[in-house]
Amino acid sequence: MADKLIVPRIPRGFKDSFVEEVIARKQMIDTICEVYHLFGFEPLETPAVEYVETLGKFLPESTTPEGGIFSFRDSDQQWTALRYDLTAPLSRVFAQYQESLPLPYRRYQYGPVFRNEKTDVGRFRQFYQCDFDTVGTSSMAADAEVCLVLLAAFQQLGLPKNVISLKVNHRKVLDGVLERAGVFAISGSETSEDIEKRRLTVLRAMDKFDRLGLDGVAALLGEGRVDISGDPTQGAGLSDAQARIVLDFLSIPTTTHSETIEAMTQAVGSSAVGIEGIADLKQIARLLEEAKVGPEVTFDPSVIRGLAYYTGPVFEAVLTFQVPDEEVGSKAFGSVAGGGRYDDLVMRFTGKRVPATGASIGVDRLLAALKHYGTSAANSYQGPVVVTVFDNKLLGFYQGVVTDLRNAGIPAELYLGTETLGKQFKYAEQRRSPLALIAGPDEIGRNEISVKNLSLGKELGKSEAFKEDREKWIRERPGQMTVARTDLIKTVQSYLRPPQ
Amino acid sequence: MADKLIVPRIPRGFKDSFVEEVIARKQMIDTICEVYHLFGFEPLETPAVEYVETLGKFLPESTTPEGGIFSFRDSDQQWTALRYDLTAPLSRVFAQYQESLPLPYRRYQYGPVFRNEKTDVGRFRQFYQCDFDTVGTSSMAADAEVCLVLLAAFQQLGLPKNVISLKVNHRKVLDGVLERAGVFAISGSETSEDIEKRRLTVLRAMDKFDRLGLDGVAALLGEGRVDISGDPTQGAGLSDAQARIVLDFLSIPTTTHSETIEAMTQAVGSSAVGIEGIADLKQIARLLEEAKVGPEVTFDPSVIRGLAYYTGPVFEAVLTFQVPDEEVGSKAFGSVAGGGRYDDLVMRFTGKRVPATGASIGVDRLLAALKHYGTSAANSYQGPVVVTVFDNKLLGFYQGVVTDLRNAGIPAELYLGTETLGKQFKYAEQRRSPLALIAGPDEIGRNEISVKNLSLGKELGKSEAFKEDREKWIRERPGQMTVARTDLIKTVQSYLRPPQ
Repeated sequence: MADKLIVPRIPRGFKDSFVEEVIARKQMIDTICEVYHLFGFEPLETPAVEYVETLGKFLPESTTPEGGIFSFRDSDQQWTALRYDLTAPLSRVFAQYQESLPLPYRRYQYGPVFRNEKTDVGRFRQFYQCDFDTVGTSSMAADAEVCLVLLAAFQQLGLPKNVISLKVNHRKVLDGVLERAGVFAISGSETSEDIEKRRLTVLRAMDKFDRLGLDGVAALLGEGRVDISGDPTQGAGLSDAQARIVLDFLSIPTTTHSETIEAMTQAVGSSAVGIEGIADLKQIARLLEEAKVGPEVTFDPSVIRGLAYYTGPVFEAVLTFQVPDEEVGSKAFGSVAGGGRYDDLVMRFTGKRVPATGASIGVDRLLAALKHYGTSAANSYQGPVVVTVFDNKLLGFYQGVVTDLRNAGIPAELYLGTETLGKQFKYAEQRRSPLALIAGPDEIGRNEISVKNLSLGKELGKSEAFKEDREKWIRERPGQMTVARTDLIKTVQSYLRPPQ
Repeated sequence: MADKLIVPRIPRGFKDSFVEEVIARKQMIDTICEVYHLFGFEPLETPAVEYVETLGKFLPESTTPEGGIFSFRDSDQQWTALRYDLTAPLSRVFAQYQESLPLPYRRYQYGPVFRNEKTDVGRFRQFYQCDFDTVGTSSMAADAEVCLVLLAAFQQLGLPKNVISLKVNHRKVLDGVLERAGVFAISGSETSEDIEKRRLTVLRAMDKFDRLGLDGVAALLGEGRVDISGDPTQGAGLSDAQARIVLDFLSIPTTTHSETIEAMTQAVGSSAVGIEGIADLKQIARLLEEAKVGPEVTFDPSVIRGLAYYTGPVFEAVLTFQVPDEEVGSKAFGSVAGGGRYDDLVMRFTGKRVPATGASIGVDRLLAALKHYGTSAANSYQGPVVVTVFDNKLLGFYQGVVTDLRNAGIPAELYLGTETLGKQFKYAEQRRSPLALIAGPDEIGRNEISVKNLSLGKELGKSEAFKEDREKWIRERPGQMTVARTDLIKTVQSYLRPPQ
C-alpha cells in the first residue's frame, strides 16, 4: 500500500451503538412515543440542519456563530448549524406553518441533537431527545397533562410509582418571592440590566440548593463563596433579611399539595406575579387530584430548571432508586426528564406571544436508569438461530433449513464464514444465538438435524412459573438433541419459548 | 418589538415531515428492519458526524474539504463532516472494532445521510437510508442472500412479486467484456491512468443504456454525442468492432438465468476476470434456485450501479408498476434499492482486503412507491378521539372521560383551546379524529355522553367483508348518538373497529 492508512476513529464526544443498546433504545423510545400518541400527540420530524438565526444563538457582534453549536456555511454561503434541541425547531415550525396546523398544535419529536461543548464521562456531543409539547394554549390543563404524560411513560416502561418523583414549581411564584424579597428594587444608578443580572444570580444560587444545601445558597445570595477548588463565585449581594425570605421559601417542606401551595402563597405575599403563579399551581393540583395522581407528584420550591426560557410552571422528573456512587457509596439515580411553560419562544418569528408547554425526556439518562433498574430490553436480547456449515457441499440443505425457520418467523442465518464447527459455535455465542443447528451427511441421510442449546442456563429461571417447571423443562430439552427434519420448527419453537 | 423578526424557514433541500409521513415512514422502516432481523442481521448506530478522512472525500491538494459533503471544524480544529452514506461509517466501525466483532459481521443501519449538493424536485440534502451488509465473507451465499432479503422486505411491505424486478450483474463480467473488447489494451504512450479513464468512460456509457438506448450508448462508446440541450459528451474512442462487443453484451436478453449466463459466458470469452465473474453468477443462480426464487430476479447485463466502489456482483431493485409521467404519459416506477460486493473499502484503514456485500434501500423512494401502490400506512392514519369542552366548569368530568379512554388503550385528548363547539369539531377533523365526544350539563346530569362520528363514510368499505355489512354497520352507528357513561368505552371501540 502506497497510501497512508487512515486511523479508524470518531471525533471526541461521539459514539457508536451496537446491537443491545440500539434495540434497548428503540424499544424504550417506541414505548414512550406510544404513550405520547395515547395522549393525542402527533409526530413531527424536522431536519438536523437549521439556519443559525432560527436556533437563536447567533451573536450579532461576531463574524462566526458562537461556540456550543456545530455551525457551517452551506453551499449558498448561509450560516447553518446542527440543532442543539428540539424546541427551537418546534417554534420555527409553528411560526412557519401556523395557518395550516391544528390549534392547539400537539406534537412529539424524537431525534439526535448536537452540542459542540466539552465532553465528559456519559456526556456526549450527539445525544437523543424525546419531546412532547402543546403549542397555542394557556390552559393549565396542558401543564397538568405534562405531568400525566411523564408518569404514564415511566410506568409503561416498568418503573413503579414509588421510584418516581415528579416535582412541580412555577417561575412566577419564584419571581413573586424575589419581588417580596426586594430583589427587583432599584437602588442608586442601577439599570434594568443590573436588576435582571441580580435576578439570574439569585435563581442560579437557588438552583444549587440540591448540591450545596441551605448554607451554600445563603452564601451565594449574600457575599458569595469560594468552592473546594478555590474558585470564587460572586454573590447576589442580598441583605440577610432579603436572603432569609428566599431561604425560607426553599425550606418549605414538600408535604401535601395543599399544604405546600399554602406555604408558597405566604411566601409570595402581595406580589401580583406571585399570586398569578399560585393560582396556576392550584389549578394544576386540582386537575392532578381529579386524575387520581398520588404522592409521586410534589410541589417543590427548589426546582428552578436552569436559566432557560421558561415563563410558567416548570417540571422535573427524578428517579429515586439508589445507584452506587464513588464518593458517597450510593445515591438516588436523579433527573431523567424536565420541562415547563415557555410563552415567548415563537415571538422571535411572529412578534406575538404564543403560549406553549411541554417536556423533554433525556433518552440516554433514562435508558441508563432502565438498565440499572432491570426493565431495559438490553439484557433479554437474543440473536438469530445459526445454521452451522459442516460441509460446503451441503449448502442447499442448510439453505432450506434457514428458509423454513424464517418462514416460521424465527430469526435465523446460515453461517457464512469458513471456520471449523467449534469456531462456528463460538460465533453463534458471540451473536447471542439461542440455538445452533448442525447436520452432517449422516444426519441428512436420515433426514435429521441436531439442535444445540447455547442459552440453556442463561435463560433459565427468569419467571417464577418457569422456575417450577425448570427440571422438567431441562429434561425435555437437553443441551443437544437430534430431531427429524419435519419436527425441526416445532422443536426450535419449544426451545425459544419457555413456559409462561 | 425592537428586535427584527426572524423569518421562519429551513435551508434549501431540507424538509419537515408531519404526522402521516412520519408514521408511514416509521412503519415502513420497522417492517424492513424486522426482515433484516429475521435474516440474522443486527442493528448498528453510528454518529452523524465523522472525520472527513474517514468518509474518504478529502482532497489532499485543497485546504478545505471538497463540496458534496457538509464539513466543518469541530472545537478541536479537526475537519469533521456529516456522513453522506452508511457504508463509509460501516467500514470505519469494522476496522476499529474488528477484534471484538463477530465474523462475519452482519449489521443493518437506518438513519439520515447528508449531501451538500444541488437540490431538485424530490431530491433532498438530508434523506434516509436503510442498509444491510455482511462484512468478512467472500461466500456467494452472502450475495444470494442480498437478493433474498430485498425480496422478503418488498413482499412484507405488501408489494406482490409481479411488480418487483431485481436485476443482478457482476463487475468482473463487465471487466471481462471490456477486456475482450480491448478496452484495456495499451496503445502508444498511454498510462495506466489513461486506461482506467477509458474504462470508466465505457462503464458510464453503458450505465446510460436505460435512458439513451443502444444508439446513444454506441455514440458514447465511439466519438461521443451532443445531447438535446447542445451539451457535448466526449466518447470513449472505441472502434466500431470494439463497440460492437460491448453493445452485443448489453443486448443479451434477460430470459432464464441459465440462458442469460450462457450468453454472458460467450461475451467474456477467455478473459480470466470475466470467467471468475461468471462462476460467481452461476453460484448465485443455483442458490436462488434452491431458495425457490422465481422470475422476479433476472441477470441483466445493463446494470452498472454508477461508478461506486463495487468489485463483484451488483444488484438493482426496480418496481415495475406504472406511474403517471408528464412527458410520456406513464412509466415504470423505477429503482428503489441497490447494492453489491465491495471488497476494498476497509483496506483504507487496515491495508488488507476485507470482503463485504450488501444493499441499501432508498427510504424516500420506496415510501413514495408504497403510497402510490396503496400499501403505505399514510392513508389509514387516525388521530385521537377528541373530548370536546362544552363548559370549562365541567373539565373534571371531561378529564375523567379522557383518562378512561386512555386506560382502555384508545388514543384520546381533551380539547385544550378556547373555541366554540363548532370549531372544536373542525379541530378534531383537522387532527383526523375518528370521533368527538360531547357532554353538556344535561347529559352529565343523566350520566350520559354523546358520540359524534367524524370518519363515517371515509372509513367505510375498506374491506370486502366490511362492504357486505355496510348498511347494518351504519344503522347501528349513526352520525351521532347518546350513550350511558358506563357504555362509552364499548361504544367507542365498536366505532373504531369495523368488522373484519
